[in-house]
Amino acid sequence: MRIVRALAVAAALAGFGAQAQELIVEKKTFELPELKTESGATLKNVKVGWESYGTLNADRSNAILIIHFFTGTSHAAGKYKPDDRAPGYWDAIVGPGKAVDTNKYFVLSSDNLVNINTRDPMVVTTGPASVNPDTGKPHGTSFPVVSFRDFVNVQKALVESLGIRRLHAVMGASGGGLQTYEWAVAYPDMVGRIVPVIAAAGGDAYRNAWLDVWAQPIRLDPKWKGGAYDPADPPRDGLAAALKIVTLHAQGADWANKTFGPAPAAEGKSPAQDLQNRYRIEAALDAAGAARAGTVDANSFLYLIRANQLANADPAKIKAPTLLIYSPTDAVFPPDWIERTAAAIRANGTPVETAPVTGPNGHLNGVLHMAPLGPKIAEFLAR
Amino acid sequence: MRIVRALAVAAALAGFGAQAQELIVEKKTFELPELKTESGATLKNVKVGWESYGTLNADRSNAILIIHFFTGTSHAAGKYKPDDRAPGYWDAIVGPGKAVDTNKYFVLSSDNLVNINTRDPMVVTTGPASVNPDTGKPHGTSFPVVSFRDFVNVQKALVESLGIRRLHAVMGASGGGLQTYEWAVAYPDMVGRIVPVIAAAGGDAYRNAWLDVWAQPIRLDPKWKGGAYDPADPPRDGLAAALKIVTLHAQGADWANKTFGPAPAAEGKSPAQDLQNRYRIEAALDAAGAARAGTVDANSFLYLIRANQLANADPAKIKAPTLLIYSPTDAVFPPDWIERTAAAIRANGTPVETAPVTGPNGHLNGVLHMAPLGPKIAEFLAR
Repeated sequence: MRIVRALAVAAALAGFGAQAQELIVEKKTFELPELKTESGATLKNVKVGWESYGTLNADRSNAILIIHFFTGTSHAAGKYKPDDRAPGYWDAIVGPGKAVDTNKYFVLSSDNLVNINTRDPMVVTTGPASVNPDTGKPHGTSFPVVSFRDFVNVQKALVESLGIRRLHAVMGASGGGLQTYEWAVAYPDMVGRIVPVIAAAGGDAYRNAWLDVWAQPIRLDPKWKGGAYDPADPPRDGLAAALKIVTLHAQGADWANKTFGPAPAAEGKSPAQDLQNRYRIEAALDAAGAARAGTVDANSFLYLIRANQLANADPAKIKAPTLLIYSPTDAVFPPDWIERTAAAIRANGTPVETAPVTGPNGHLNGVLHMAPLGPKIAEFLAR
Repeated sequence: MRIVRALAVAAALAGFGAQAQELIVEKKTFELPELKTESGATLKNVKVGWESYGTLNADRSNAILIIHFFTGTSHAAGKYKPDDRAPGYWDAIVGPGKAVDTNKYFVLSSDNLVNINTRDPMVVTTGPASVNPDTGKPHGTSFPVVSFRDFVNVQKALVESLGIRRLHAVMGASGGGLQTYEWAVAYPDMVGRIVPVIAAAGGDAYRNAWLDVWAQPIRLDPKWKGGAYDPADPPRDGLAAALKIVTLHAQGADWANKTFGPAPAAEGKSPAQDLQNRYRIEAALDAAGAARAGTVDANSFLYLIRANQLANADPAKIKAPTLLIYSPTDAVFPPDWIERTAAAIRANGTPVETAPVTGPNGHLNGVLHMAPLGPKIAEFLAR
């Protein structure tokens, strides 16, 4: 390991670091014959995709689990192919010589249950869009409600299948942060430390109502048909509208104002002149939602909303040392909720540090602008 | 005036103040033969409802204009009939002996152009739902885009029709606050001072995108038909969904959590057990949206969204002394936007004071919890 790191440093100093250090990642599938859900159902033949970076050490003590956010996948770092347009979402902090140093740690990440990106060929998940082995047809709305505890239980089975009995750390952004808290509450003996990012712990009616607003356009789309939609003719408009709300809620005012300002969607077609004319930011958000809708499944979106609504990890029960990273301009988990979470963990005698992640992107700063947090994370993981 | 106030104080001390002091209000209609809109159209036969409290003094120098918020009407204070269930929305600060003392000031307030409450029998407005005198049919989407400047111009015509050449003050909450800024920029010589409440000045792409999210369910409803809906079969579901988003966005986390907590919508039907089961807060917001939808017109909602999107009063141009009242937990106009507005006005040498209005209701604190701001407002108005 030491030699690899020395080479990496040498390579970086020689100016070809990025290329020499590029992490090429293999997507694997984990299978679990049976999962008992919190809601009391038994799911058979559960499959989730996963990937890992770095090498598990001899005593299997160097594993770090990263859990993805609402619209995310297992792809936290590296590239599947050298010519991929972009690496995984946290590539700035995960990789050889980076904050979550894959020369030192074995980092793993899985697609969650009811992952929404069912039409992304790199995603493997079990949810309403997957085939029920008992019927040979997609589960649809007969799929049981699943909770973050269920998500965590699948991750735990994956971790245990590798012979890992304790995770050096668990970390994740947004919904991945909520599951990070869930891990610390559910399996305290398996979690060395946690790094929840842009997420506040505990149940919250206000968050639940906002999640319902995210889901609302799907239910309003006549093509949804109470969940019994034709897979070839899904509620695409409702889904696009839902993803648009998620995008805006996760973004920040600086992003909106600096990227778009008051510009109209089409040159010379002022919104001041005609109700049909629109702003560029509206058109951009519409386009972003429509583009995402192509790979996302509507029912999976609704099941994931419910899993998020059920999140209720009690921060007072957390024993794992915590580095809580938050965005001061977060509209989804504003700073006052973060403070309440940190205070509840601290009241229990558990050490908690909070650190801001800044940038123009609101909530998404915790996905897009993590590089400056690297030293803080590296130091926390090394303790 | 002095005698009336002395009597009011005596009545209040005697314990029957509220009844003795009850303000009974008459709704009146103001007609403007013609309005040239900012978008270049000419609207004929413009009518808006209005009401007033107190008496205009001999030199017509004691008038205060109050401008209503997005879902509001002219009904800022008092009751139309003694047995009305509730008085106007700012009754806590407007009335005899109150902060905006109607024993001292002549207070007036009008329904705006494109007021959304077209089916409320007490509302008089001109918008897409009103009849075009040239065709004998509702304007629909042939109604021109109107801006807050147009709203202000109708208010100005009303004020001038009463012989008032200068307003002692202009004040309003939320959208009414945006128009308050617009007054100060458009007609600085007519405005003695301003009290914008829960509103930040200037154009903002982020706000515009959120306003688009508010409007989105209406456009998604197949019954909207691009605006050409049957008035007897309007896009009620989309409108209810839109009003639900407005309600939630205007509310606060404390309200959500303390009022509803994690309770299910129906006893024994846990959201953890079935995707169809819902939370009480979801059901309550659905019911609130549906209840409001009965009196609201969908196209008027879209025109009002556009007027809000066009708001761009430059705070640097404001010369009127300003008392800016904001809610620290406001999700629509968060404190940092308020601070930017205050700084921009102040940079110009104009005196600005900011004061927080607190409570569990987020943005709506500026409507629901204004009583404690009374002394500050009274003192500011008396300067």
